[in-house]
Amino acid sequence: MPEFELIERIRARAGGRDDVVLGIGDDAALLRVPPDRQLVVAMDTLNDGVHFPRGTAAADVGWKALAVNLSDLAAMGAEPAWCTLSLSLPASDDGWVDGFLDGFLKLATAHRVALVGGDTTRGPLSICVTMHGLVEPGRALRRDAARAGDAVWASGSLGDAGAALALLDAGATPPAALRERLDRPTPRIALGRALGGVAAAAIDVSDGLLADLDHVCAASGVGMRIALDALPASDALLAACDAAARTGFQTGGGDDYELAFTTPPDADAAVRAAALGAGVAVTRIGEVVTGERVRLFDDSGREWMPTARGYAHFAAND
Amino acid sequence: MPEFELIERIRARAGGRDDVVLGIGDDAALLRVPPDRQLVVAMDTLNDGVHFPRGTAAADVGWKALAVNLSDLAAMGAEPAWCTLSLSLPASDDGWVDGFLDGFLKLATAHRVALVGGDTTRGPLSICVTMHGLVEPGRALRRDAARAGDAVWASGSLGDAGAALALLDAGATPPAALRERLDRPTPRIALGRALGGVAAAAIDVSDGLLADLDHVCAASGVGMRIALDALPASDALLAACDAAARTGFQTGGGDDYELAFTTPPDADAAVRAAALGAGVAVTRIGEVVTGERVRLFDDSGREWMPTARGYAHFAAND
Repeated sequence: MPEFELIERIRARAGGRDDVVLGIGDDAALLRVPPDRQLVVAMDTLNDGVHFPRGTAAADVGWKALAVNLSDLAAMGAEPAWCTLSLSLPASDDGWVDGFLDGFLKLATAHRVALVGGDTTRGPLSICVTMHGLVEPGRALRRDAARAGDAVWASGSLGDAGAALALLDAGATPPAALRERLDRPTPRIALGRALGGVAAAAIDVSDGLLADLDHVCAASGVGMRIALDALPASDALLAACDAAARTGFQTGGGDDYELAFTTPPDADAAVRAAALGAGVAVTRIGEVVTGERVRLFDDSGREWMPTARGYAHFAAND
Repeated sequence: MPEFELIERIRARAGGRDDVVLGIGDDAALLRVPPDRQLVVAMDTLNDGVHFPRGTAAADVGWKALAVNLSDLAAMGAEPAWCTLSLSLPASDDGWVDGFLDGFLKLATAHRVALVGGDTTRGPLSICVTMHGLVEPGRALRRDAARAGDAVWASGSLGDAGAALALLDAGATPPAALRERLDRPTPRIALGRALGGVAAAAIDVSDGLLADLDHVCAASGVGMRIALDALPASDALLAACDAAARTGFQTGGGDDYELAFTTPPDADAAVRAAALGAGVAVTRIGEVVTGERVRLFDDSGREWMPTARGYAHFAAND
């Protein structure tokens, strides 16, 4: 399939929005930004065999390529609007492209995201997406807004995607519920929107809870104490592994795309109302303290030290 | 160099702008769009050995990665503002990254472009840039605005980059002036801005003049008659090859990143004033007619048919 036919194939399926003056098919897209909003821009690339296992279904790759970018917008408290897509393919493959678009556009439609442009090139399989969203001035959730005394929260459950990846790496077949979390992460857009004006700092859990909370600590100039036994786990994760492995996946496993966020100490009721409205469970997992990094403690007050092996394993899957 | 050090290395050198609320280092960038402007978004990827010859100097790759995106903005008549960069590298290489940033940021600084975010990943060498610009509502230069009776123009000179690539492919060393056009294209931003309100349709010459003007014809529902003997050639191209090869490069060679545009028939004086103000030569090369595609004629009125070989050769280098 020549490049121009491929672009036409994508254009024919891309959704629209009233604020798109000009979408796919010119040198650039033309977009209208409301005067009372700031523009939010995130960009994430997925490479074959690095960010998804080789042989992942095309529709899952398409879904995930958009999901990881939507997750960045969720972590800013932004409303999604438009995206551009750069697709590098080693050879033309109509079936793969159609499958990819099935997954990509299903998630785009669910969040009213218009695909407005991009690029198609020949090269090793790689997908780069730039996601554009809108947020009210002053309401963005930033990494540098955590303060000592704040509560720390996580949405949903942690460790499922990391466990699925570890099982795949070991040659095993992960339970469907875990594999689904790896292949089709759910960006927490509604929760991010509801946390605007409620939460202080936020980040999405893509590298692993510890690594990501460390980013918040570094940006905010604080430390955190996290309660290991409070970390939310799914039934599928509880059934799949023992407590030690579970802790490793919950703290070091990436690809969960949950939100981790901080709130002023008296905001519990507001957080729970936001979570209820968004239809997502939230768990209070710790507190912000003076200091530098994240430290983990179990219910008996013993500090838990992540193993170098745990970090290294997941560092290769960022 | 671990990913976070690499990001820090990039952040330390990225430029700023007053309208950047939040740049590199959070989940997404936060930007202020003026209420009287539309947002213009272009995205282009460069793959090693496809969009630049293997072994191209890192600084030239950095320059070109931004230049091809700025060129898309030029073709819209937009003013550049912010960019995001996704860099896939097979292995950490401080020297290569520093060289890449030298070229990328030199051009960014020249056009007051702030690098506000992006991604760094492990994978085959590939660079994806999303470029954001601003344009006054109604002043964007679009591909669908050419009308029968309009004049067709090209900026600068055509064919230099294609000739350099053909010489490289043949194992020869291109003259420096030609190689420079291939490695360090000049995005015609000032000309694009000056043509707002003057030109009708515009496109940048990236795939080759014929292929690109055919895009304008398709989008506008028109044909074009192009005067072969009017096509602008540099002294370097005139010296490097005979007339037949030159014509092939001027019509089918990509990578020139000149602007091709149409204007109402009585706009000659305004075009020349715009070009003078932008410091770029422009040449009237033909006219828009009713029809479907671009046709080329020499001074004796004979139609020139591009060879399949010419198209195919450059189709591999889009």
